[in-house]
Amino acid sequence: MKDTILIVGLGVIGAGFAQGLSSVGYPVYGVDLDKKTIEYALEHKIIVKGGQDIEEFLPIANIIILCVYPQAILNILQSHQFSPNQIVTDVSGVKSNLVETINNLNISCQYVSIHPMAGREKKGILYADKTRFYDANFLIIPTNKTTNLAIETLTKIAKDLKFGRITTMSSWHHDEMIAKTSQLPHALAVALVLSDDDNDTVNYIGDSYRDLTRIAMINHDLWQELFMENKNNLLKNIEKFEKKLDNIKDCLKQGDVEGLKALFKASTTKREMMNKEKVTK
Amino acid sequence: MKDTILIVGLGVIGAGFAQGLSSVGYPVYGVDLDKKTIEYALEHKIIVKGGQDIEEFLPIANIIILCVYPQAILNILQSHQFSPNQIVTDVSGVKSNLVETINNLNISCQYVSIHPMAGREKKGILYADKTRFYDANFLIIPTNKTTNLAIETLTKIAKDLKFGRITTMSSWHHDEMIAKTSQLPHALAVALVLSDDDNDTVNYIGDSYRDLTRIAMINHDLWQELFMENKNNLLKNIEKFEKKLDNIKDCLKQGDVEGLKALFKASTTKREMMNKEKVTK
Repeated sequence: MKDTILIVGLGVIGAGFAQGLSSVGYPVYGVDLDKKTIEYALEHKIIVKGGQDIEEFLPIANIIILCVYPQAILNILQSHQFSPNQIVTDVSGVKSNLVETINNLNISCQYVSIHPMAGREKKGILYADKTRFYDANFLIIPTNKTTNLAIETLTKIAKDLKFGRITTMSSWHHDEMIAKTSQLPHALAVALVLSDDDNDTVNYIGDSYRDLTRIAMINHDLWQELFMENKNNLLKNIEKFEKKLDNIKDCLKQGDVEGLKALFKASTTKREMMNKEKVTK
Repeated sequence: MKDTILIVGLGVIGAGFAQGLSSVGYPVYGVDLDKKTIEYALEHKIIVKGGQDIEEFLPIANIIILCVYPQAILNILQSHQFSPNQIVTDVSGVKSNLVETINNLNISCQYVSIHPMAGREKKGILYADKTRFYDANFLIIPTNKTTNLAIETLTKIAKDLKFGRITTMSSWHHDEMIAKTSQLPHALAVALVLSDDDNDTVNYIGDSYRDLTRIAMINHDLWQELFMENKNNLLKNIEKFEKKLDNIKDCLKQGDVEGLKALFKASTTKREMMNKEKVTK
Protein backbone atom coordinates (compact mmCIF):
# COMPACT_ATOMS: atom_id res chain seq x y z
CA MET A 1 0.00 0.00 0.00
CA LYS A 2 1.22 3.47 -0.81
CA ASP A 3 2.15 5.96 1.89
CA THR A 4 -0.49 8.49 2.83
CA ILE A 5 0.69 12.01 2.09
CA LEU A 6 -0.35 15.30 3.66
CA ILE A 7 0.58 18.45 1.80
CA VAL A 8 0.39 21.68 3.77
CA GLY A 9 0.07 24.70 1.50
CA LEU A 10 -1.46 24.06 -1.93
CA GLY A 11 0.36 26.80 -3.81
CA VAL A 12 2.03 26.33 -7.15
CA ILE A 13 4.56 23.82 -5.75
CA GLY A 14 2.36 22.12 -3.15
CA ALA A 15 -0.55 21.62 -5.52
CA GLY A 16 1.85 20.53 -8.26
CA PHE A 17 3.20 17.84 -5.92
CA ALA A 18 -0.36 16.84 -4.96
CA GLN A 19 -1.37 16.61 -8.62
CA GLY A 20 1.65 14.49 -9.55
CA LEU A 21 1.46 12.19 -6.53
CA SER A 22 -2.30 11.67 -6.84
CA SER A 23 -1.86 10.75 -10.49
CA VAL A 24 0.45 7.85 -9.58
CA GLY A 25 -1.89 6.53 -6.90
CA TYR A 26 -0.85 8.04 -3.57
CA PRO A 27 -3.71 9.03 -1.28
CA VAL A 28 -2.98 12.77 -0.94
CA TYR A 29 -4.59 15.03 1.68
CA GLY A 30 -4.28 18.80 1.49
CA VAL A 31 -4.41 21.67 3.93
CA ASP A 32 -4.59 25.31 2.88
CA LEU A 33 -5.75 28.48 4.62
CA ASP A 34 -7.73 29.38 1.52
CA LYS A 35 -11.07 27.55 1.26
CA LYS A 36 -11.39 28.13 -2.48
CA THR A 37 -8.03 26.47 -3.02
CA ILE A 38 -9.27 23.35 -1.23
CA GLU A 39 -12.50 23.38 -3.22
CA TYR A 40 -10.52 23.67 -6.45
CA ALA A 41 -8.18 20.86 -5.39
CA LEU A 42 -11.09 18.55 -4.58
CA GLU A 43 -12.96 19.40 -7.75
CA HIS A 44 -9.90 18.66 -9.91
CA LYS A 45 -9.05 15.48 -7.97
CA ILE A 46 -5.70 16.96 -6.91
CA ILE A 47 -6.40 15.71 -3.37
CA VAL A 48 -8.78 13.10 -1.94
CA LYS A 49 -9.71 15.20 1.08
CA GLY A 50 -8.70 18.55 2.50
CA GLY A 51 -9.44 21.43 4.81
CA GLN A 52 -8.02 24.26 6.90
CA ASP A 53 -6.93 22.28 9.95
CA ILE A 54 -3.63 20.39 9.97
CA GLU A 55 -4.70 18.43 13.08
CA GLU A 56 -7.53 16.81 11.16
CA PHE A 57 -5.13 15.04 8.78
CA LEU A 58 -1.84 14.86 10.67
CA PRO A 59 -2.57 11.60 12.56
CA ILE A 60 -3.30 9.66 9.35
CA ALA A 61 -0.33 10.85 7.25
CA ASN A 62 2.96 8.94 6.86
CA ILE A 63 4.60 11.70 4.88
CA ILE A 64 4.05 15.40 5.52
CA ILE A 65 5.26 17.91 2.93
CA LEU A 66 5.31 21.52 4.11
CA CYS A 67 4.92 23.79 1.07
CA VAL A 68 4.68 27.08 2.94
CA TYR A 69 6.92 30.16 3.27
CA PRO A 70 10.17 29.59 5.19
CA GLN A 71 9.06 31.34 8.37
CA ALA A 72 5.81 29.36 8.52
CA ILE A 73 7.64 26.02 8.56
CA LEU A 74 8.97 26.47 12.07
CA ASN A 75 5.61 27.67 13.35
CA ILE A 76 4.02 24.44 12.12
CA LEU A 77 6.77 22.23 13.52
CA GLN A 78 6.52 23.84 16.94
CA SER A 79 2.74 23.89 17.24
CA HIS A 80 1.94 20.27 16.33
CA GLN A 81 2.89 16.81 17.54
CA PHE A 82 4.68 14.48 15.13
CA SER A 83 5.49 10.83 15.67
CA PRO A 84 8.81 8.98 15.11
CA ASN A 85 7.45 7.03 12.13
CA GLN A 86 6.36 10.17 10.29
CA ILE A 87 8.61 11.60 7.58
CA VAL A 88 8.40 15.38 7.39
CA THR A 89 9.89 17.63 4.71
CA ASP A 90 9.71 21.17 3.37
CA VAL A 91 10.39 22.82 0.01
CA SER A 92 11.95 26.05 1.26
CA GLY A 93 14.35 27.76 -1.13
CA VAL A 94 17.00 28.47 1.55
CA LYS A 95 18.21 25.89 4.01
CA SER A 96 21.12 26.84 6.34
CA ASN A 97 19.20 28.68 9.05
CA LEU A 98 16.22 26.35 8.73
CA VAL A 99 18.28 23.17 9.10
CA GLU A 100 20.26 24.60 12.01
CA THR A 101 17.04 25.49 13.82
CA ILE A 102 15.50 22.09 13.12
CA ASN A 103 18.67 20.38 14.37
CA ASN A 104 18.08 22.10 17.70
CA LEU A 105 14.32 21.45 17.84
CA ASN A 106 12.84 18.84 20.09
CA ILE A 107 10.66 17.00 17.56
CA SER A 108 10.41 13.27 17.16
CA CYS A 109 9.68 12.88 13.43
CA GLN A 110 12.19 11.93 10.71
CA TYR A 111 12.93 15.29 9.09
CA VAL A 112 14.65 15.81 5.75
CA SER A 113 14.56 19.01 3.71
CA ILE A 114 14.15 19.04 -0.08
CA HIS A 115 14.36 21.59 -2.88
CA PRO A 116 12.53 20.85 -6.12
CA MET A 117 14.25 23.08 -8.69
CA ALA A 118 11.16 23.94 -10.67
CA GLY A 119 9.70 27.18 -9.43
CA ARG A 120 7.41 29.41 -11.39
CA GLU A 121 6.95 33.16 -11.51
CA LYS A 122 3.22 32.56 -10.97
CA LYS A 123 1.79 31.62 -7.62
CA GLY A 124 -1.31 29.68 -6.60
CA ILE A 125 -3.00 26.39 -7.38
CA LEU A 126 -4.26 27.60 -10.78
CA TYR A 127 -0.68 27.48 -12.05
CA ALA A 128 0.15 24.08 -10.54
CA ASP A 129 1.43 21.75 -13.23
CA LYS A 130 3.03 18.38 -12.51
CA THR A 131 4.83 18.39 -15.87
CA ARG A 132 7.02 21.28 -14.65
CA PHE A 133 8.88 18.76 -12.50
CA TYR A 134 9.76 16.40 -15.34
CA ASP A 135 13.55 16.13 -15.66
CA ALA A 136 14.10 18.99 -13.21
CA ASN A 137 16.81 18.81 -10.55
CA PHE A 138 15.80 17.61 -7.08
CA LEU A 139 17.94 18.37 -4.04
CA ILE A 140 17.82 16.49 -0.74
CA ILE A 141 19.24 18.27 2.32
CA PRO A 142 19.57 16.13 5.48
CA THR A 143 19.16 17.36 9.04
CA ASN A 144 20.25 15.56 12.22
CA LYS A 145 16.73 14.07 12.23
CA THR A 146 17.12 12.45 8.82
CA THR A 147 17.06 8.64 8.59
CA ASN A 148 18.00 6.43 5.64
CA LEU A 149 14.31 5.65 5.32
CA ALA A 150 13.51 9.36 5.00
CA ILE A 151 16.05 9.78 2.19
CA GLU A 152 14.82 6.63 0.42
CA THR A 153 11.21 7.79 0.73
CA LEU A 154 11.87 11.25 -0.69
CA THR A 155 14.00 9.75 -3.46
CA LYS A 156 11.06 7.55 -4.40
CA ILE A 157 8.71 10.54 -4.35
CA ALA A 158 11.10 12.49 -6.59
CA LYS A 159 11.17 9.60 -9.06
CA ASP A 160 7.37 9.23 -8.93
CA LEU A 161 7.13 12.93 -9.78
CA LYS A 162 9.53 12.29 -12.70
CA PHE A 163 12.26 14.62 -11.47
CA GLY A 164 15.63 14.21 -13.22
CA ARG A 165 18.85 14.28 -11.28
CA ILE A 166 18.52 13.73 -7.51
CA THR A 167 21.39 15.07 -5.41
CA THR A 168 21.97 14.97 -1.66
CA MET A 169 23.93 17.91 -0.26
CA SER A 170 24.59 19.86 2.91
CA SER A 171 22.52 22.91 3.77
CA TRP A 172 25.47 25.31 3.48
CA HIS A 173 26.45 23.91 0.08
CA HIS A 174 22.83 24.20 -1.01
CA ASP A 175 22.67 27.85 -0.01
CA GLU A 176 25.91 28.69 -1.80
CA MET A 177 24.62 27.00 -4.94
CA ILE A 178 21.20 28.54 -4.77
CA ALA A 179 22.64 32.04 -4.32
CA LYS A 180 24.45 31.56 -7.62
CA THR A 181 21.91 29.65 -9.67
CA SER A 182 18.63 31.13 -8.45
CA GLN A 183 18.94 34.27 -6.35
CA LEU A 184 21.62 35.96 -8.46
CA PRO A 185 19.61 35.46 -11.70
CA HIS A 186 16.54 36.89 -9.98
CA ALA A 187 18.52 39.91 -8.75
CA LEU A 188 19.85 40.52 -12.28
CA ALA A 189 16.43 40.23 -13.88
CA VAL A 190 14.93 42.67 -11.37
CA ALA A 191 17.78 45.17 -11.86
CA LEU A 192 17.54 44.83 -15.65
CA VAL A 193 13.82 45.58 -15.74
CA LEU A 194 14.18 48.48 -13.30
CA SER A 195 17.09 50.00 -15.22
CA ASP A 196 14.73 50.72 -18.11
CA ASP A 197 13.07 54.09 -17.72
CA ASP A 198 11.20 54.16 -21.04
CA ASN A 199 7.57 53.21 -21.39
CA ASP A 200 7.57 51.93 -24.95
CA THR A 201 10.31 49.32 -24.59
CA VAL A 202 7.77 46.57 -25.20
CA ASN A 203 7.64 47.58 -28.87
CA TYR A 204 11.28 46.74 -29.38
CA ILE A 205 11.93 43.58 -27.40
CA GLY A 206 12.61 40.09 -28.66
CA ASP A 207 12.39 36.71 -26.99
CA SER A 208 15.82 37.04 -25.39
CA TYR A 209 14.69 40.02 -23.33
CA ARG A 210 11.46 38.24 -22.38
CA ASP A 211 13.33 35.08 -21.35
CA LEU A 212 15.85 37.01 -19.33
CA THR A 213 13.31 39.12 -17.46
CA ARG A 214 10.48 36.61 -16.87
CA ILE A 215 11.72 36.04 -13.31
CA ALA A 216 11.58 39.79 -12.64
CA MET A 217 7.91 38.97 -11.99
CA ILE A 218 8.58 37.84 -8.49
CA ASN A 219 6.55 36.98 -5.39
CA HIS A 220 7.86 39.80 -3.19
CA ASP A 221 6.87 38.28 0.16
CA LEU A 222 8.52 34.95 -0.54
CA TRP A 223 11.62 36.27 -2.27
CA GLN A 224 12.52 38.96 0.24
CA GLU A 225 12.69 36.11 2.79
CA LEU A 226 14.86 34.01 0.49
CA PHE A 227 17.20 36.93 -0.30
CA MET A 228 17.53 38.09 3.30
CA GLU A 229 18.07 34.58 4.67
CA ASN A 230 20.91 34.02 2.22
CA LYS A 231 22.26 37.52 1.84
CA ASN A 232 25.94 36.81 2.48
CA ASN A 233 26.10 34.18 -0.24
CA LEU A 234 24.08 36.36 -2.59
CA LEU A 235 26.27 39.43 -2.07
CA LYS A 236 29.39 37.34 -2.69
CA ASN A 237 27.95 36.09 -5.97
CA ILE A 238 26.81 39.53 -7.07
CA GLU A 239 30.39 40.71 -6.63
CA LYS A 240 31.76 37.83 -8.70
CA PHE A 241 29.27 38.70 -11.41
CA GLU A 242 30.25 42.38 -11.31
CA LYS A 243 33.89 41.50 -11.94
CA LYS A 244 32.97 39.65 -15.14
CA LEU A 245 30.73 42.49 -16.25
CA ASP A 246 33.72 44.79 -15.68
CA ASN A 247 35.75 42.57 -18.03
CA ILE A 248 33.16 43.15 -20.76
CA LYS A 249 33.14 46.91 -20.07
CA ASP A 250 36.94 47.03 -20.28
CA CYS A 251 36.91 45.30 -23.67
CA LEU A 252 34.34 47.81 -24.94
CA LYS A 253 36.20 50.85 -23.61
CA GLN A 254 39.52 49.66 -25.01
CA GLY A 255 38.08 48.41 -28.31
CA ASP A 256 39.55 45.00 -27.48
CA VAL A 257 37.88 42.85 -30.15
CA GLU A 258 39.90 39.72 -29.42
CA GLY A 259 39.28 40.02 -25.68
CA LEU A 260 35.53 40.32 -26.24
CA LYS A 261 35.52 37.34 -28.59
CA ALA A 262 37.40 35.30 -25.99
CA LEU A 263 34.75 36.11 -23.36
CA PHE A 264 31.96 35.13 -25.77
CA LYS A 265 33.69 31.88 -26.68
CA ALA A 266 34.20 30.99 -23.02
CA SER A 267 30.57 31.73 -22.09
CA THR A 268 29.31 29.72 -25.06
CA THR A 269 31.39 26.69 -24.09
CA LYS A 270 30.39 26.90 -20.44
CA ARG A 271 26.70 27.35 -21.17
CA GLU A 272 26.54 24.59 -23.79
CA MET A 273 27.59 22.12 -21.08
CA MET A 274 24.40 23.03 -19.21
CA ASN A 275 21.95 22.14 -21.96
CA LYS A 276 19.46 19.56 -20.73
CA GLU A 277 20.35 17.08 -23.45
CA LYS A 278 24.00 17.21 -22.35
CA VAL A 279 23.21 16.36 -18.76
CA THR A 280 23.59 12.69 -17.94
CA LYS A 281 21.43 11.46 -15.16
CA MET B 1 2.44 38.99 -59.72
CA LYS B 2 4.56 38.81 -56.60
CA ASP B 3 7.90 40.59 -56.35
CA THR B 4 10.97 38.49 -57.00
CA ILE B 5 13.18 38.33 -53.93
CA LEU B 6 16.91 37.74 -53.66
CA ILE B 7 18.24 36.81 -50.24
CA VAL B 8 21.99 37.12 -49.76
CA GLY B 9 23.21 35.00 -46.87
CA LEU B 10 21.09 31.96 -45.98
CA GLY B 11 21.90 31.83 -42.28
CA VAL B 12 19.32 31.38 -39.58
CA ILE B 13 17.60 34.70 -40.40
CA GLY B 14 18.10 34.73 -44.18
CA ALA B 15 16.95 31.15 -44.63
CA GLY B 16 14.06 31.76 -42.21
CA PHE B 17 12.94 34.69 -44.38
CA ALA B 18 13.35 32.58 -47.52
CA GLN B 19 11.31 29.75 -45.99
CA GLY B 20 8.50 32.07 -44.89
CA LEU B 21 8.36 34.08 -48.11
CA SER B 22 8.50 30.97 -50.34
CA SER B 23 5.63 29.47 -48.36
CA VAL B 24 3.35 32.40 -49.24
CA GLY B 25 4.22 32.30 -52.92
CA TYR B 26 7.10 34.70 -53.53
CA PRO B 27 9.73 33.49 -56.00
CA VAL B 28 12.80 33.52 -53.73
CA TYR B 29 16.41 33.24 -54.97
CA GLY B 30 19.28 32.65 -52.58
CA VAL B 31 23.00 33.36 -52.55
CA ASP B 32 25.38 31.91 -50.00
CA LEU B 33 29.13 31.33 -49.93
CA ASP B 34 28.53 27.82 -48.65
CA LYS B 35 27.55 25.35 -51.38
CA LYS B 36 25.99 22.87 -48.96
CA THR B 37 23.70 25.59 -47.66
CA ILE B 38 22.42 26.23 -51.19
CA GLU B 39 21.94 22.50 -51.78
CA TYR B 40 19.99 22.22 -48.53
CA ALA B 41 17.86 25.26 -49.42
CA LEU B 42 17.00 23.83 -52.85
CA GLU B 43 16.29 20.38 -51.48
CA HIS B 44 13.89 21.77 -48.86
CA LYS B 45 12.24 24.18 -51.35
CA ILE B 46 13.38 27.16 -49.26
CA ILE B 47 14.48 28.84 -52.52
CA VAL B 48 13.63 28.25 -56.19
CA LYS B 49 17.19 28.80 -57.40
CA GLY B 50 20.50 29.73 -55.84
CA GLY B 51 24.26 29.86 -56.06
CA GLN B 52 27.43 31.63 -54.96
CA ASP B 53 27.34 34.61 -57.30
CA ILE B 54 25.18 37.64 -56.52
CA GLU B 55 25.53 38.91 -60.11
CA GLU B 56 23.70 35.87 -61.44
CA PHE B 57 20.47 36.80 -59.61
CA LEU B 58 20.74 40.55 -59.01
CA PRO B 59 19.30 41.67 -62.39
CA ILE B 60 16.08 39.68 -61.95
CA ALA B 61 15.29 40.63 -58.33
CA ASN B 62 12.92 43.45 -57.28
CA ILE B 63 13.73 43.10 -53.62
CA ILE B 64 17.20 42.30 -52.26
CA ILE B 65 17.54 41.30 -48.59
CA LEU B 66 21.12 41.29 -47.28
CA CYS B 67 21.31 38.83 -44.39
CA VAL B 68 25.06 39.04 -43.83
CA TYR B 69 27.28 40.41 -41.06
CA PRO B 70 27.27 44.22 -40.71
CA GLN B 71 30.68 44.75 -42.30
CA ALA B 72 29.79 42.63 -45.34
CA ILE B 73 26.77 44.79 -46.19
CA LEU B 74 28.84 47.75 -47.36
CA ASN B 75 31.15 45.53 -49.37
CA ILE B 76 28.17 44.19 -51.28
CA LEU B 77 26.63 47.63 -51.83
CA GLN B 78 29.89 49.03 -53.17
CA SER B 79 30.82 46.15 -55.44
CA HIS B 80 27.54 45.71 -57.35
CA GLN B 81 25.24 47.84 -59.48
CA PHE B 82 21.66 48.37 -58.30
CA SER B 83 18.85 50.07 -60.21
CA PRO B 84 16.41 52.78 -59.00
CA ASN B 85 13.45 50.39 -59.05
CA GLN B 86 15.17 47.86 -56.79
CA ILE B 87 14.39 47.87 -53.08
CA VAL B 88 17.37 46.84 -50.96
CA THR B 89 17.41 46.09 -47.24
CA ASP B 90 19.56 44.48 -44.55
CA VAL B 91 18.88 42.82 -41.19
CA SER B 92 21.89 44.14 -39.29
CA GLY B 93 21.48 44.40 -35.51
CA VAL B 94 23.04 47.89 -35.28
CA LYS B 95 22.10 50.76 -37.53
CA SER B 96 23.60 54.21 -36.80
CA ASN B 97 26.97 53.82 -38.52
CA LEU B 98 25.48 51.72 -41.30
CA VAL B 99 22.71 54.20 -42.12
CA GLU B 100 25.12 57.14 -42.00
CA THR B 101 27.46 55.40 -44.42
CA ILE B 102 24.62 54.45 -46.75
CA ASN B 103 23.32 58.03 -46.68
CA ASN B 104 26.69 59.10 -48.11
CA LEU B 105 26.95 56.28 -50.66
CA ASN B 106 26.39 56.87 -54.33
CA ILE B 107 23.93 54.05 -55.02
CA SER B 108 20.73 54.36 -56.99
CA CYS B 109 18.47 51.74 -55.34
CA GLN B 110 15.72 52.43 -52.80
CA TYR B 111 17.38 51.46 -49.52
CA VAL B 112 15.62 50.85 -46.22
CA SER B 113 17.07 49.01 -43.25
CA ILE B 114 15.07 46.54 -41.13
CA HIS B 115 15.53 44.63 -37.88
CA PRO B 116 13.46 41.48 -37.33
CA MET B 117 13.52 40.98 -33.55
CA ALA B 118 13.70 37.22 -33.61
CA GLY B 119 17.29 36.12 -33.37
CA ARG B 120 18.43 32.74 -32.21
CA GLU B 121 21.46 31.55 -30.31
CA LYS B 122 22.01 28.99 -33.07
CA LYS B 123 23.38 29.90 -36.47
CA GLY B 124 23.00 28.37 -39.90
CA ILE B 125 20.23 27.20 -42.21
CA LEU B 126 19.54 24.04 -40.17
CA TYR B 127 18.05 26.23 -37.45
CA ALA B 128 15.99 28.41 -39.80
CA ASP B 129 12.35 28.39 -38.74
CA LYS B 130 9.72 30.75 -40.14
CA THR B 131 7.51 30.30 -37.07
CA ARG B 132 10.11 32.18 -34.99
CA PHE B 133 8.91 35.39 -36.65
CA TYR B 134 5.25 34.96 -35.74
CA ASP B 135 4.14 37.89 -33.54
CA ALA B 136 7.73 39.13 -33.14
CA ASN B 137 8.55 42.84 -33.34
CA PHE B 138 9.69 44.21 -36.71
CA LEU B 139 11.60 47.48 -36.93
CA ILE B 140 11.95 49.61 -40.07
CA ILE B 141 14.81 52.13 -40.17
CA PRO B 142 14.78 54.60 -43.09
CA THR B 143 17.83 56.03 -44.83
CA ASN B 144 17.92 59.06 -47.16
CA LYS B 145 17.42 56.53 -49.98
CA THR B 146 14.13 55.23 -48.58
CA THR B 147 10.93 55.80 -50.58
CA ASN B 148 7.33 55.34 -49.46
CA LEU B 149 7.21 52.35 -51.78
CA ALA B 150 10.20 50.80 -49.99
CA ILE B 151 8.50 51.16 -46.59
CA GLU B 152 5.19 49.80 -47.95
CA THR B 153 6.98 46.85 -49.52
CA LEU B 154 8.88 45.90 -46.36
CA THR B 155 5.71 46.35 -44.31
CA LYS B 156 3.96 43.90 -46.60
CA ILE B 157 6.84 41.44 -46.30
CA ALA B 158 6.73 41.71 -42.51
CA LYS B 159 3.00 40.96 -42.57
CA ASP B 160 3.50 38.06 -44.98
CA LEU B 161 6.06 36.66 -42.53
CA LYS B 162 3.44 37.08 -39.76
CA PHE B 163 5.49 39.49 -37.67
CA GLY B 164 3.54 41.30 -34.95
CA ARG B 165 4.07 44.98 -34.27
CA ILE B 166 5.78 46.91 -37.06
CA THR B 167 7.50 50.14 -35.99
CA THR B 168 9.39 52.73 -38.02
CA MET B 169 12.17 54.51 -36.13
CA SER B 170 15.40 56.44 -36.62
CA SER B 171 18.74 54.65 -36.63
CA TRP B 172 19.95 56.40 -33.47
CA HIS B 173 16.73 55.56 -31.59
CA HIS B 174 17.06 51.99 -32.80
CA ASP B 175 20.60 51.69 -31.47
CA GLU B 176 19.66 53.14 -28.09
CA MET B 177 16.79 50.66 -27.82
CA ILE B 178 18.80 47.71 -28.98
CA ALA B 179 21.60 48.43 -26.51
CA LYS B 180 19.02 48.15 -23.75
CA THR B 181 16.83 45.31 -24.96
CA SER B 182 19.33 43.07 -26.71
CA GLN B 183 22.98 43.87 -26.11
CA LEU B 184 22.65 44.53 -22.37
CA PRO B 185 20.84 41.20 -21.76
CA HIS B 186 23.53 39.39 -23.75
CA ALA B 187 26.28 41.09 -21.72
CA LEU B 188 24.56 40.08 -18.47
CA ALA B 189 24.09 36.48 -19.55
CA VAL B 190 27.74 36.19 -20.58
CA ALA B 191 28.94 37.73 -17.30
CA LEU B 192 26.60 35.50 -15.28
CA VAL B 193 27.86 32.30 -16.88
CA LEU B 194 31.49 33.38 -16.57
CA SER B 195 31.10 34.37 -12.92
CA ASP B 196 30.51 30.72 -12.05
CA ASP B 197 33.76 28.93 -11.34
CA ASP B 198 32.32 25.57 -10.29
CA ASN B 199 32.06 22.61 -12.63
CA ASP B 200 29.02 20.88 -11.14
CA THR B 201 26.60 23.80 -11.31
CA VAL B 202 24.52 21.97 -13.87
CA ASN B 203 23.31 19.61 -11.12
CA TYR B 204 21.66 22.44 -9.26
CA ILE B 205 20.09 24.67 -11.88
CA GLY B 206 16.44 25.21 -12.67
CA ASP B 207 14.69 26.62 -15.71
CA SER B 208 15.20 30.21 -14.59
CA TYR B 209 18.96 29.85 -14.84
CA ARG B 210 18.67 28.12 -18.21
CA ASP B 211 16.34 30.82 -19.56
CA LEU B 212 18.54 33.60 -18.32
CA THR B 213 21.75 32.18 -19.71
CA ARG B 214 20.62 30.73 -23.04
CA ILE B 215 21.90 33.81 -24.86
CA ALA B 216 25.34 33.34 -23.28
CA MET B 217 25.73 30.90 -26.18
CA ILE B 218 26.65 33.63 -28.58
CA ASN B 219 28.05 33.89 -32.11
CA HIS B 220 31.29 35.63 -31.17
CA ASP B 221 32.13 37.00 -34.62
CA LEU B 222 28.74 38.59 -35.13
CA TRP B 223 28.26 39.87 -31.60
CA GLN B 224 31.64 41.46 -31.15
CA GLU B 225 30.75 43.59 -34.19
CA LEU B 226 27.35 44.47 -32.74
CA PHE B 227 28.82 45.33 -29.32
CA MET B 228 31.70 47.38 -30.70
CA GLU B 229 29.53 49.29 -33.20
CA ASN B 230 27.17 50.31 -30.41
CA LYS B 231 29.54 50.49 -27.48
CA ASN B 232 28.63 53.96 -26.21
CA ASN B 233 24.95 53.09 -25.91
CA LEU B 234 25.78 49.73 -24.39
CA LEU B 235 28.15 51.18 -21.77
CA LYS B 236 25.51 53.76 -20.82
CA ASN B 237 22.94 51.00 -20.27
CA ILE B 238 25.34 48.79 -18.33
CA GLU B 239 25.86 51.70 -15.96
CA LYS B 240 22.11 52.22 -15.51
CA PHE B 241 21.78 48.53 -14.75
CA GLU B 242 24.62 48.65 -12.22
CA LYS B 243 22.86 51.42 -10.30
CA LYS B 244 19.77 49.25 -9.87
CA LEU B 245 21.86 46.28 -8.84
CA ASP B 246 23.47 48.57 -6.27
CA ASN B 247 19.99 49.32 -4.90
CA ILE B 248 19.41 45.61 -4.34
CA LYS B 249 22.82 45.24 -2.69
CA ASP B 250 22.10 48.17 -0.39
CA CYS B 251 18.80 46.61 0.73
CA LEU B 252 20.61 43.34 1.46
CA LYS B 253 23.45 44.99 3.38
CA GLN B 254 21.07 47.12 5.43
CA GLY B 255 18.49 44.36 5.96
CA ASP B 256 15.93 46.68 4.37
CA VAL B 257 13.01 44.26 3.87
CA GLU B 258 10.51 46.92 2.80
CA GLY B 259 12.96 48.43 0.33
CA LEU B 260 13.60 45.04 -1.25
CA LYS B 261 9.88 44.29 -1.47
CA ALA B 262 9.33 47.66 -3.17
CA LEU B 263 11.97 46.81 -5.81
CA PHE B 264 10.36 43.41 -6.42
CA LYS B 265 6.88 44.95 -6.72
CA ALA B 266 8.13 47.56 -9.18
CA SER B 267 9.92 45.00 -11.35
CA THR B 268 6.88 42.72 -11.34
CA THR B 269 4.58 45.52 -12.46
CA LYS B 270 6.98 46.71 -15.16
CA ARG B 271 7.65 43.23 -16.51
CA GLU B 272 3.98 42.18 -16.52
CA MET B 273 3.30 45.00 -18.98
CA MET B 274 5.68 43.30 -21.40
CA ASN B 275 3.90 39.95 -21.57
CA LYS B 276 3.00 39.13 -25.16
CA GLU B 277 -0.69 38.79 -24.37
CA LYS B 278 -0.69 42.34 -22.96
CA VAL B 279 0.77 43.87 -26.11
CA THR B 280 -1.83 45.36 -28.42
CA LYS B 281 -0.87 45.45 -32.05
